[in-house]
Parts: sequence; C-alpha cells; structure tokens
Amino acid sequence: MNTPDAQMSIGMNILGFGAHAGAWRKAEVPADAYLDVAYYQNIARISERGCLDAIFLADGPALGADIARHPAGRLEPTVLLTAVALATRHIGVIATASSTYNEPFNLARRFSSLDHISGGRAAWNVVTNATDAAAQNFGLAGAPLHVDRYARADEFIDVTLKLWDSWEDDAVIADTRQGRFADPSKVHSIDFVGEHFSVKGPLNLPRSPQGRPVLVQAGSSEGGKALGSRYADAIFTTQTTLVDGQAFYREMKQRAQQWGRNPEHLKIMPGLSTVIGSTEAEAHARFDELNAYYGEQGLLQQVAARVGLVESELDPDAQLPWDKIGPVSAFERGSHGFLEAQLNLARRENLTLRELSRRILVGHRLLVGTPEQVADTLEHWFRNGAADGFNIMPDMFPSGVEVFVDEVVPLLQQRGVFRREYRGSTLRDHLGLPYPASQYQRAAQAV
Amino acid sequence: MNTPDAQMSIGMNILGFGAHAGAWRKAEVPADAYLDVAYYQNIARISERGCLDAIFLADGPALGADIARHPAGRLEPTVLLTAVALATRHIGVIATASSTYNEPFNLARRFSSLDHISGGRAAWNVVTNATDAAAQNFGLAGAPLHVDRYARADEFIDVTLKLWDSWEDDAVIADTRQGRFADPSKVHSIDFVGEHFSVKGPLNLPRSPQGRPVLVQAGSSEGGKALGSRYADAIFTTQTTLVDGQAFYREMKQRAQQWGRNPEHLKIMPGLSTVIGSTEAEAHARFDELNAYYGEQGLLQQVAARVGLVESELDPDAQLPWDKIGPVSAFERGSHGFLEAQLNLARRENLTLRELSRRILVGHRLLVGTPEQVADTLEHWFRNGAADGFNIMPDMFPSGVEVFVDEVVPLLQQRGVFRREYRGSTLRDHLGLPYPASQYQRAAQAV
Repeated sequence: MNTPDAQMSIGMNILGFGAHAGAWRKAEVPADAYLDVAYYQNIARISERGCLDAIFLADGPALGADIARHPAGRLEPTVLLTAVALATRHIGVIATASSTYNEPFNLARRFSSLDHISGGRAAWNVVTNATDAAAQNFGLAGAPLHVDRYARADEFIDVTLKLWDSWEDDAVIADTRQGRFADPSKVHSIDFVGEHFSVKGPLNLPRSPQGRPVLVQAGSSEGGKALGSRYADAIFTTQTTLVDGQAFYREMKQRAQQWGRNPEHLKIMPGLSTVIGSTEAEAHARFDELNAYYGEQGLLQQVAARVGLVESELDPDAQLPWDKIGPVSAFERGSHGFLEAQLNLARRENLTLRELSRRILVGHRLLVGTPEQVADTLEHWFRNGAADGFNIMPDMFPSGVEVFVDEVVPLLQQRGVFRREYRGSTLRDHLGLPYPASQYQRAAQAV
Repeated sequence: MNTPDAQMSIGMNILGFGAHAGAWRKAEVPADAYLDVAYYQNIARISERGCLDAIFLADGPALGADIARHPAGRLEPTVLLTAVALATRHIGVIATASSTYNEPFNLARRFSSLDHISGGRAAWNVVTNATDAAAQNFGLAGAPLHVDRYARADEFIDVTLKLWDSWEDDAVIADTRQGRFADPSKVHSIDFVGEHFSVKGPLNLPRSPQGRPVLVQAGSSEGGKALGSRYADAIFTTQTTLVDGQAFYREMKQRAQQWGRNPEHLKIMPGLSTVIGSTEAEAHARFDELNAYYGEQGLLQQVAARVGLVESELDPDAQLPWDKIGPVSAFERGSHGFLEAQLNLARRENLTLRELSRRILVGHRLLVGTPEQVADTLEHWFRNGAADGFNIMPDMFPSGVEVFVDEVVPLLQQRGVFRREYRGSTLRDHLGLPYPASQYQRAAQAV
C-alpha cells in the first residue's frame, strides 16, 4: 500500500498505431509510420513533456497472423529505442526481448549498450514467447511448454544479472599516464554452468550507468509470478478488476519478501487501455468510430480466441459457455496471465462475449471515458493497494498520448499522485529504485 | 581491373581509439570516449564530410585479454550504429556480427531494422569468431573448428538472405480505406530446413530500403573466400603486398563468376592502417610517439603471437624462425587470412620481427607517411587490379580521420579516383551495387 504522499509511475506502451486494431485505418499518421523512427520519437517527446517514467515496446520474434488486414512487422526494440533515447533526455526506454530465443551474453550486452547510450534509461522486459510461430523461427516445431520456458527464463536472468555485475563500479582506472586501464581483480568471470547455459564472462562492457538496466517482467502466470517476484524491478501485469489487482499486488509483495527482498523495490504496474474523450459521449463516439474501422466481429474474435473459443460458434449476447472453457492450468502454451484476467472479469460481472469485448483491449482492462474518469481509476487503484504505477495503452497515436499527457496527467499532478518534473536522470530514479550493488563487489567485501 | 574513370570506395574503420594500441594513452579524447556515442558520431560526421562510403565497426562477443593495459569492452555495433546513422545523412554503417553466436532470425531482423532506420545505409559484416573466449560465453569449451564455423556461416547467410527477401518489394498495400495492409501472396515463408538451422519465416519486417542490407565478409581464408565470393557484396581483406593483393583480387572475381555472379558486384576492399604526417619525418615522429606510449615490446608481442611464437624467445633483429612456424593450414582456430598476409610480407621481403612490427598494424598493411604517399598507394592498388576500395584504419581518432579526410581525400578527388559528392542515398549506391531482386519475386515470375 502506498503512503499518502507517494507518487505513481506511468509507462507509455506503444503498440504500433495504438492499442485499437482500427487505429491504422483512422490514419492519424501514414500507414508506414510504424517503420519510421520519427513516429516513435514524437510519441516519446510528448510522453516526456508529461514526465512519464518510460515508453515501452512489446515484441515477439514472428510475424502476426492477419497481415492482409493489419499492419505487420516491428522494428527490433533495442535498435529502435536507441533512436528514441537520442531524441529525448529523461524518459526511460523499455524494450521487450525473449529469454527463449536469445543468448544471455548477446542480450546482456545489447541492453548494457542501450543503458550506456541512453545515460541510464534502459530496461529489459523479459518475456518467454508463447507462440508456435516464434518457435518455428528458431528450429522448433512449436513453443516449448510453459514450465520449460520459465525454467530457462530463470536461468537466463540469473546469467544476465551476473554479466551486468561482472565489472565492479570502480573497475575502470583509465590512467593514461601510467597506462593502466582497468583493475583486473575487479572484473569477474562469472563461470556460470547451469541446465541451459554455460557462460564464462565477464561481459565485454564496463558496468552501465544504472548499474544494471532495469528488469521488467510481464507474465502473470504462476511461473511468471515466481520469476518476477524474485528478480524483477517492475511487473507489468494484466488485472481487470480492483479486487484481483489488490490480491495480485499483495501476493507479489509477499513473494518478494519471501525472496528476501524489500517489497518496495518491486513495482507493480497493471496495464490500462484508454479511449479518452472530453465527455463520456465523445469517448464512446471515438471508440465506436475505431470499432467501425475494425469491425465489431474482429473485436469479438479477438476476445473469443483468447479463451480458446471460436467466435462464429457463439451467441455474442449469451453467457459465455463456461463448460467449454477449461481451467487456466490446462492452457499449456498460451499466456496464462491474459487468460486469467479476462476470465476473472467475465465471471465476476457475468459478461457476454460482446460486453467483454468492450471491457478488454489487447488483453488489458479498457476504460472508455473522460480524463477525470481515467485519473479517478488510476488514483483509486494506486491509493487502494492495487498498483504502484501503470502501463498505459492508448487506443491510437499520437492523439491518445496527447490527450493523456495534456488532460490526464495534470489531474494526477493536482491530486499529488504524479510528479510535476523529473527528479533524477535514470529510469531507476524515476521508478524510485535504488542503485544495485554488484553481487561481486559484495562478495569481495565479505572476504 | 577498374576502368580509367572508375572511382574507389573507402570505409573508415573505427577501432576503439584508433588502430594503434598507444592511441588511448595519447588521449586526444577522454579515456571513456569509446563508450560515448558522441565520439563515434563525430568520426562519422568527419568521414561524411569526405564523402566516404561507410564507417565500419569490428566486433567480437568476448572481452579482450589485457584489460589492465588496454581499454576493453565495446558497445554492441547495431545499437551504436543506429545512433551514428541518426547523426548523419549519407554515410553507410557497417556492423560486424557473428554467424557462430547468433540466430539468423534475430540477426536478420536487427540489420533490417537498422536498414529501415538509416534509410538504406546498413551493412552486416559476417565473421565466424575464432577465439575460445567467445566460445566460452556461449556454452562451448573452445571455438568450433574453422571448417565447422564456415559451414554454419554458409547456412546462416543463406537463411538471412531468404528472410530479407521474404517480403516482396510491393507486398505492402497500406490501403487504409479498404483496410488492406499487405498482399499475403507476396509475403513468403522461407521454410528453411538445414544442418544448422530450421527457420520458417517470413521475417517480421517488410523489405528494407536497400532490398537487403549490404553483406560484407571479412575472412580471407579458403573458407572465407568460398563464402565471400558466393554471397558477399564486399570483401574486407588483409593484403600486405601488391602482388598478393592482385592475386586475391583476380581469384575472388573469378570465383564470383564461377558462382554465376557479375564480378563487378563483388567489391574487394583491402585494409590499410595509416600514420599520416605532413612530411615523412612528421609521420615517423607520430608513429614513434605512439610506439613510446605502447612500448615497442608490445608491438613485437602482437606480431609474434599472431604466428604462434613467443616474443621473449626470439631475437627481434634476426630472421624469423621459419622452421617453427607451421603452414597456415595447420592453424585450426585462428584467423587464416591475417596469418597468411603477415607471413607473405615477412617471407617476400625477408623481414625480421622488428621490421615486420613496423609494416603491420592490427593485422593489416601499415603505411607511415605523407598524404601523397597514402594517396599514391591507394591509387596504385586501385589502378592495378588489387582493389575496388579500401578499409582505412587510422592510427588514432579523431586526428587520424581528420587528416585522411582533409589531406588524402582531396588528392584522390584531384586524381579522379574518388567522388566529390554523394550520388545516391544508400550504401549500395555508394558502392555501385544494384538493388537486389527478391529471390521469391523471381520465382513467382518464372511460374
């Protein structure tokens, strides 16, 4: 639970043209904008005007399915966010990358490079990638089982943290007169030998400005919760009702404590999709317009597919066929977190498929409403033990981030729950996270 | 052989503080400049002022050995060159990456992203990495055998080219009114199944501005020559004598022809390390000063180690102990190309270790001399069938690139062998390479 004078963190999630699948057709920007760094730099600058903590890029190493109807393909996030970091001064940059389809040395190095280049604003959002399409680009017939993906992720993160720690903070001497560059006794091989990886190290980069890039974890399954509570600095989670959000928040803070961590150093950030209008009617008109571009059937298909159902076999205005929907644990390959959040909402409020399709967007809680209503729900969740911050997913860019920064942020500032200026220079500073000591430095001091 | 009105290509190779190991101690820039994008952006802007084709970054996924005495660690090249591309408008950016320690899908995507972001200026320099230190960061006890590294590289490149070709040029429709994004019949799975890789594809990015990023290959061993002549757009090679350079040039053009390629579309670019002064005496004084920073013993050790000898066991002023130096083919793990070039020079001119250490720098031919002498040798090799262009490795930055651009380039321009302005916008344009058709597009037309 946050103290009365605490302030929330806010990340801006850039999902292509926006969270709504109709955004590209509304065409606020040209249809090739998603391949243009200037598009992302513009969104980041607007977000920085609002003092947001970070911009965030989701990712997966495979092409989306329906390329006939939807913009497909994504610039690789570490490369793209390098371009974004150079166009901004304060805002953090969070790139998603897979622990299933990368090697720890390469990934640790790329994120360390981004942290160096951005002056301490980089974060890695670790995902395990549930799709068969991704697996098939890496020599596998289908996605590894959930449990196997998370076992690899655990070891992957352990190796990555060790590599980031492998140079102590004061390892570099840089004495040009004496010709002494570094103190080799402060640069450590990690000599990791595990089930999935053997990595000698050290990393071929000195420690980065944040000590380590921020570690974000975005799975809310059992495997994801174990991983996130152990290692992550921030958890991006999908929570669709306050009571579920509170339960998740309590559980994660407790788990962090059980790992011997200070629970305040694990930030819980649920997602919120937004469709904002000056009045409720305007917001709903904006949503209806986007729906018209996408087709309501598209929305229904999206929501049905996530719970393993086929939209055409359902009555969208009847109760969901609960007997055909298996328990979350039976879904071996998909994202358990999204599934559970969607089912929780439908069950608690007894929603039909059509109703559900207007309460969930890209798997996250959706609010169609006014700036006041958005500020209300953010403040309410923040003050009532369900969130330390939020991952905001506007329907459409750039208007969705503009209205959020210009209309919602000032309300949050007036209410004292969001900063009016950046206080520090790194993403850790924004998130209220301490600078992490190198695990090797501690070991040396103990000896 | 280049026609009388042909012009050469020039790449600027940024090796840390410069090719000379003493450069960091001379301290033209602060000792942490190599971690600062502004340092690289400055070198790139100077190079662009001279209309050079590209800047080039070598790389390897392991920390160098002697970190007590030398700056160690490197920013990851695709991330760093994204920052460089955003600070420049014309110059190409060539990033080295390993085919032994990457996955084709990830690498293809990162370079395609760099090509999109730079507006068609990206190149991948493929290397296989010969060191055990690299192997030990990726689960291996030591570097795979030369033959195995090159077998994997061949397949890796094949997969990567297919991924880059997987979207036909006109696959994207981007019709927002009709809601049609792409023509799925023009986006191809590659369905690759080989010895080392199984990759379904397609890439999750539309075709990049150059069609494919430029492919550079930097090994001059037998394996490297086979690979380079088959796939590469440009070969970075180490050649230490004109006669060897001519032989290599002829051989590579012939090999390209044997693969059914137009030999003019394979550019041969030997390396040249430079120490430039207004007079020969000034150049030698500059070299001596850098040598004093490094210590001559360091130079001798470098050169001896490359041929498998220990400097302390040798008389630096006697003939090399040829009986102790095995044939190139006996070196299973090191770089055959560097080794052969160094041995060729020593044998042909009957050099002692000390003499050799002043003719070779970072494994490449070294010229200590005036701008005229540098221009002379570049023109001579270019006009006499030994080179289509050069990979220039100045001793020290930024003064080494400044004197090259301000003093050597104008001479080359006066002699008509180098451009006075950029004629095109992509690296392919600079190099005189055609836009490559997608292999899938051709297949479709044949049907």
